Amino acid sequence: MYELGVVYRNIKRADRAAADGLAALGSATVHEAMGRVGLMKPYMRPIYSGAQVSGTAVTVLLHPGDNWMMHVVAEQIQPGDIVVAAITADCTDGYFGDLLATSFQARGARALVIDAGVRDVKELQRMNFPVWSKAISSKGTIKSTLGSVNIPVVCAGMWVTPGDVIVADDDGVVCVPAARAAQTLAAAQQRESLEGDKREKLASGISGLDMYNMRESLAAAGLKYIDEC
Amino acid sequence: MYELGVVYRNIKRADRAAADGLAALGSATVHEAMGRVGLMKPYMRPIYSGAQVSGTAVTVLLHPGDNWMMHVVAEQIQPGDIVVAAITADCTDGYFGDLLATSFQARGARALVIDAGVRDVKELQRMNFPVWSKAISSKGTIKSTLGSVNIPVVCAGMWVTPGDVIVADDDGVVCVPAARAAQTLAAAQQRESLEGDKREKLASGISGLDMYNMRESLAAAGLKYIDEC
Amino acid sequence: MYELGVVYRNIKRADRAAADGLAALGSATVHEAMGRVGLMKPYMRPIYSGAQVSGTAVTVLLHPGDNWMMHVVAEQIQPGDIVVAAITADCTDGYFGDLLATSFQARGARALVIDAGVRDVKELQRMNFPVWSKAISSKGTIKSTLGSVNIPVVCAGMWVTPGDVIVADDDGVVCVPAARAAQTLAAAQQRESLEGDKREKLASGISGLDMYNMRESLAAAGLKYIDEC
Amino acid sequence: MYELGVVYRNIKRADRAAADGLAALGSATVHEAMGRVGLMKPYMRPIYSGAQVSGTAVTVLLHPGDNWMMHVVAEQIQPGDIVVAAITADCTDGYFGDLLATSFQARGARALVIDAGVRDVKELQRMNFPVWSKAISSKGTIKSTLGSVNIPVVCAGMWVTPGDVIVADDDGVVCVPAARAAQTLAAAQQRESLEGDKREKLASGISGLDMYNMRESLAAAGLKYIDEC
Amino acid sequence: MYELGVVYRNIKRADRAAADGLAALGSATVHEAMGRVGLMKPYMRPIYSGAQVSGTAVTVLLHPGDNWMMHVVAEQIQPGDIVVAAITADCTDGYFGDLLATSFQARGARALVIDAGVRDVKELQRMNFPVWSKAISSKGTIKSTLGSVNIPVVCAGMWVTPGDVIVADDDGVVCVPAARAAQTLAAAQQRESLEGDKREKLASGISGLDMYNMRESLAAAGLKYIDEC
Amino acid sequence: MYELGVVYRNIKRADRAAADGLAALGSATVHEAMGRVGLMKPYMRPIYSGAQVSGTAVTVLLHPGDNWMMHVVAEQIQPGDIVVAAITADCTDGYFGDLLATSFQARGARALVIDAGVRDVKELQRMNFPVWSKAISSKGTIKSTLGSVNIPVVCAGMWVTPGDVIVADDDGVVCVPAARAAQTLAAAQQRESLEGDKREKLASGISGLDMYNMRESLAAAGLKYIDEC
Repeated sequence: MYELGVVYRNIKRADRAAADGLAALGSATVHEAMGRVGLMKPYMRPIYSGAQVSGTAVTVLLHPGDNWMMHVVAEQIQPGDIVVAAITADCTDGYFGDLLATSFQARGARALVIDAGVRDVKELQRMNFPVWSKAISSKGTIKSTLGSVNIPVVCAGMWVTPGDVIVADDDGVVCVPAARAAQTLAAAQQRESLEGDKREKLASGISGLDMYNMRESLAAAGLKYIDEC
Repeated sequence: MYELGVVYRNIKRADRAAADGLAALGSATVHEAMGRVGLMKPYMRPIYSGAQVSGTAVTVLLHPGDNWMMHVVAEQIQPGDIVVAAITADCTDGYFGDLLATSFQARGARALVIDAGVRDVKELQRMNFPVWSKAISSKGTIKSTLGSVNIPVVCAGMWVTPGDVIVADDDGVVCVPAARAAQTLAAAQQRESLEGDKREKLASGISGLDMYNMRESLAAAGLKYIDEC
Repeated sequence: MYELGVVYRNIKRADRAAADGLAALGSATVHEAMGRVGLMKPYMRPIYSGAQVSGTAVTVLLHPGDNWMMHVVAEQIQPGDIVVAAITADCTDGYFGDLLATSFQARGARALVIDAGVRDVKELQRMNFPVWSKAISSKGTIKSTLGSVNIPVVCAGMWVTPGDVIVADDDGVVCVPAARAAQTLAAAQQRESLEGDKREKLASGISGLDMYNMRESLAAAGLKYIDEC
Repeated sequence: MYELGVVYRNIKRADRAAADGLAALGSATVHEAMGRVGLMKPYMRPIYSGAQVSGTAVTVLLHPGDNWMMHVVAEQIQPGDIVVAAITADCTDGYFGDLLATSFQARGARALVIDAGVRDVKELQRMNFPVWSKAISSKGTIKSTLGSVNIPVVCAGMWVTPGDVIVADDDGVVCVPAARAAQTLAAAQQRESLEGDKREKLASGISGLDMYNMRESLAAAGLKYIDEC
Repeated sequence: MYELGVVYRNIKRADRAAADGLAALGSATVHEAMGRVGLMKPYMRPIYSGAQVSGTAVTVLLHPGDNWMMHVVAEQIQPGDIVVAAITADCTDGYFGDLLATSFQARGARALVIDAGVRDVKELQRMNFPVWSKAISSKGTIKSTLGSVNIPVVCAGMWVTPGDVIVADDDGVVCVPAARAAQTLAAAQQRESLEGDKREKLASGISGLDMYNMRESLAAAGLKYIDEC
Repeated sequence: MYELGVVYRNIKRADRAAADGLAALGSATVHEAMGRVGLMKPYMRPIYSGAQVSGTAVTVLLHPGDNWMMHVVAEQIQPGDIVVAAITADCTDGYFGDLLATSFQARGARALVIDAGVRDVKELQRMNFPVWSKAISSKGTIKSTLGSVNIPVVCAGMWVTPGDVIVADDDGVVCVPAARAAQTLAAAQQRESLEGDKREKLASGISGLDMYNMRESLAAAGLKYIDEC
């Protein structure tokens, strides 16, 4: 349940090194490193492909069709932040365009993650300001009702607390709690360090069934091979 | 309610200069300039990104799975037109491919906007013929039932009268009534002329709250800033 | 109804020349050549545009959130195959990433068609390994429950028998029964051979109504042209 | 394109006898009698089953999450009207509950058709005030932005002009243009008068293939009967 | 891949006693008894609640918006059959109403299962003719293109072979292959016979964790109980 | 981000009188009394109409297709509780049927709210055990992976902390934080006490525009009445 009409100014951000380091691992590896939790719903898509970022979450709660608080949250951005925008009901309106992106970028924001729509996407790509959103829409918004800034929000099915780390790429968006950022980075790096060897083996034609020692468990589960068909 | 089996030949097109001039402004600015109305639903997406067009609407009403009238509407195209295709029920079939696009392009059509599916999208991009559609599908259609050409239609939730101006880009598709094309162009140009200055200020780090004088109205609405969290 | 826990090893693949030759025709032409049947639902989209492939189907049935059988099917791949993955209930999880793709590619697979999600899409594009899927998602899967390999499956609404030919491109995915591969190739080639002449005529401005002799049948169906509007 | 901020007071309603008489025929028969056009999209569902009404349309255009104009349209209701509510963007909020229904009913409204959500559905059923809507939702709305009353609107994909006849039952909602109400009533009544005889024949076991003389056309189309399977 | 334009007359129906006996078990128990396969997608809903049937499948393949083959399949119905209707592309049109239901019922059909829409639902309930469908819609259909009768079809994601047993109730629709009908009936009856005792224990307050002996496996999996919160 | 594999036993439940008293007000009034926040998404629907309940939330987090923790949460139920079930990814499987309902009911649960599917709905209605869910499905689940009990969860887009009050009826499901239960009850009761008078006035034909004093603000906003049309 949301507190409305408040802006929390001094949020505690996750450790900077961990927050910055997670981008390189990517959302899939980070999600696995946390035990397969933390992902936003897969309808969240990048407005252009290829961007891969991480940063500390600054959150904003908005009402359907009303982007007033976008201007309020802009002022709370610090370099290295990613703005996470939640809406109190389903909405695909275009809450964000090139002017807001200019302001966000000037203050050091690395990206926007919004459970609604954005517009000016061609210009946003030109500015190299990535957005993960539910929709793209020219539909404009009004400035009429207060929401809040830097309260915990539900964005695309995931709970995000201000200061958490957001990791986003072409595969999706994952939220890492601030308190677990460092250990998640370590776990993700370890996961990745093991992948190079596996990739080489698989590329050489070794079966995953052998590499992962799956044959026995598959047989135990009752898998049968049949030669005639 | 639709009149079936008719083709209106002499439609009155919007002023050519206004129809041509709106492309440069883009769908978001034009939609704002009209008072935030006129947009098709955001499920209408370009089959490839980067195209930005405007033109006068030639309309066609089709039945689900039947593209017979596509061939009829082709003949009614004049240079500078955009074909707007509506279907009498939800359908994602591929009504349109490279052969029809060749015919449309030969007659001067600038784009197709269709509340259904299209195919041959790789070839359409090669031809530089943009389409905004609800779906991409190889599913073919038959030629069996009459629809109509150049009657007013509902396309993706928006009412389009033949001769209206269609503006389409990566953000979506907007319809400007012919009678309001010139005034919308003027209003949109004025909107845009103000944006350069704003962009510069925001890029320099000035807060939108100051630039737009929002602090007072936010406080009046009850917004509270809290320093401890 | 599905048989669970079995792997059929010696499936009968469609004629290789026909399976290979269908790629050049593309899904739309092949679908038409079969009488407008055989298409998967249009929610199946390529993870990157431009790929156009055909190959023989190796099938796998998986449970929601469980990709155990992906490792089993990998071993059954032969050069020229396309893996077709069906799930026993709706699921958007990321069943497949760059490690599995390495294994599939090492064994000669040309593509994956999956009625669920995949991840590592940036890397998959770099590897030039195309996938047609319902979703992109970082969401990982477990390895816990047996499915089957090389049984007939329903994938995205279409029945696929092991050894059938799969044709996939930007327009969608079509399945050609093995027994009809050669005749479909011939029919599709004939269709295509007629298109060049049509394209030229339409490009010169000839109306499709004349080229296809539609005027009479349209009039017989009652189409009326009206000059005043 | 919509005109905002206006209320048209003296709309021309369809012939009363025709408007009243269409209820008995039901939406499916009326839709057929008009040549299979005029239906709203099938996501429009009654909040309780069994209601079957017709009446003259009074229209209202609302903004997402804002029901201010509902109070304005209430005053324009005359006995025998059905309110048709359209929204400028997709929204499922609960625009209408038992208090507004009390007001609508007091002024003689027969039903509400709304391309959004409603609430208090248990009480609405108790009051015997039927609603066809896209959603049921407790979500409340604000009163902040002007829409319009009695302008033509697009509701659930259908164009509705004030004064048109709305026919709604468990099968859906159809809109009959005022100018065609009488002829549609006649055509629908004739359709229905033929159904009794058909129903009797079919109930006696006569095949529809014989009753409708379909055997010859099916054979001409190439239908083949095969006895072995 | 579908064979078009054929009607198979002498299909082999599942054992009558098994086909009839499965209704009493219900779709959930039957689905479990088969190893959790065989279910159609959950968007298939009954048009009225409370019906619970089983019967032998007679199948029909239809084109979008075209119900011609419904009249053809009617003639192939034998007492105890359930008609299963598949469409070659997504469609919500109303393919079936009270006249067809009269004909189906006269020939002994117990129900219709259709991956599309139906209409006259109030009358169908009055006739006590149950339907499971994807949609309810007044939208009428044409009679123009051939499909097939009694070929295997994909209906709502499930493969149905003519003669299979269909079990449908408020929980959904399941398909039991003819060859497995008897053993599925036995397995389902055994499942159900064990439920009475379990129900009594659970009603008395015994924990399922004890009744199913789950405590040890939960602890082995690592479940921790924490008293402070 | 979710903690997995834990069961919190001694949760602090909201004040009993407030939790019990909120049922009578209904979800729409309670949602308004909280400032229009707290609602789950409107896809959450009752499996039968007419139930209206409130109670204290006991939460459970489940994996897709796995209902193991349902048996764990059952043991944590106290009289007056409502179980709130969240899933780590989208799923429509039937996690809950009449046996689990028997166990829940024996322990005093008043309802289940689940962001997935349930089955045995006919029997659940007979038992008078209401459920609000996203789907109805016969699809069974396995018991394989640990989730958690009584951790905060996101259910249908809403954050629910164990011990919060859940209010559910035909209009939807709302969550009231435990700390605000008493004040919300008071505010909701006050809201309702004002409605009787309003209803009477509106029923007598008084316009809402007069009763709510809206004429002036509508005119100030620029609303125009036009008599000719």
